[in-house]
Amino acid sequence: MSNLSVRELPVLQPEETVAPCCPPLTERPLSAEEAERTAVMFKALGDPVRLRLFSLIASHEGGEACVCDISDVGVSQPTVSHHLKKLREAGLLTSERRATWVYYKVAPEVVAAMSALLDLRH
Amino acid sequence: MSNLSVRELPVLQPEETVAPCCPPLTERPLSAEEAERTAVMFKALGDPVRLRLFSLIASHEGGEACVCDISDVGVSQPTVSHHLKKLREAGLLTSERRATWVYYKVAPEVVAAMSALLDLRH
Repeated sequence: MSNLSVRELPVLQPEETVAPCCPPLTERPLSAEEAERTAVMFKALGDPVRLRLFSLIASHEGGEACVCDISDVGVSQPTVSHHLKKLREAGLLTSERRATWVYYKVAPEVVAAMSALLDLRH
Repeated sequence: MSNLSVRELPVLQPEETVAPCCPPLTERPLSAEEAERTAVMFKALGDPVRLRLFSLIASHEGGEACVCDISDVGVSQPTVSHHLKKLREAGLLTSERRATWVYYKVAPEVVAAMSALLDLRH
């Protein structure tokens, strides 16, 4: 048995593992670990259906949407759910269940960090 | 033989086929065609080695580098060349041969458009 009390247990911080880390790419090269962590987010938007779904949610009223709001993307509802899960796992969306539906919302700080990483003007 | 004079020949504009197109993702959903075109660029940065190479070039003196400037990324030089080619095909890098080496440079307008697409503050 461990001697750790509950207070001493490490606090899980899921955002820490998904948020991009780094200054604009012009400032310094990424380390292997930083690149590993950040590539996951770019990969999540590197699929046309996921990118389209992401833009649907980002531009939807209130910046959030459920699968029930999404149609006309040319894929089945289970496929939509699968892609939304991938985007959530990459940290780009957060989700909340309300009654029957799961609502997805853009994670603004993660997307802002990606945008800042690509802002090479300085 | 063609009757076209040199002046009348269409000017090739490779950037036109690779540049992202669109306003910030909060403004409106992407069309299928727009998403298809733009996902290619995110996919290019969705690999840890490619993202790291991209940051190496972006942060290198003068914003450009050749394979000869790149070491310590843990992959062989042919693999580095392969990834740089992928980044160039996606429109994120331009290349120019000078003597023995091909020099790669970040395509600032393409990267700026990706950054703007993810700028959801407005």
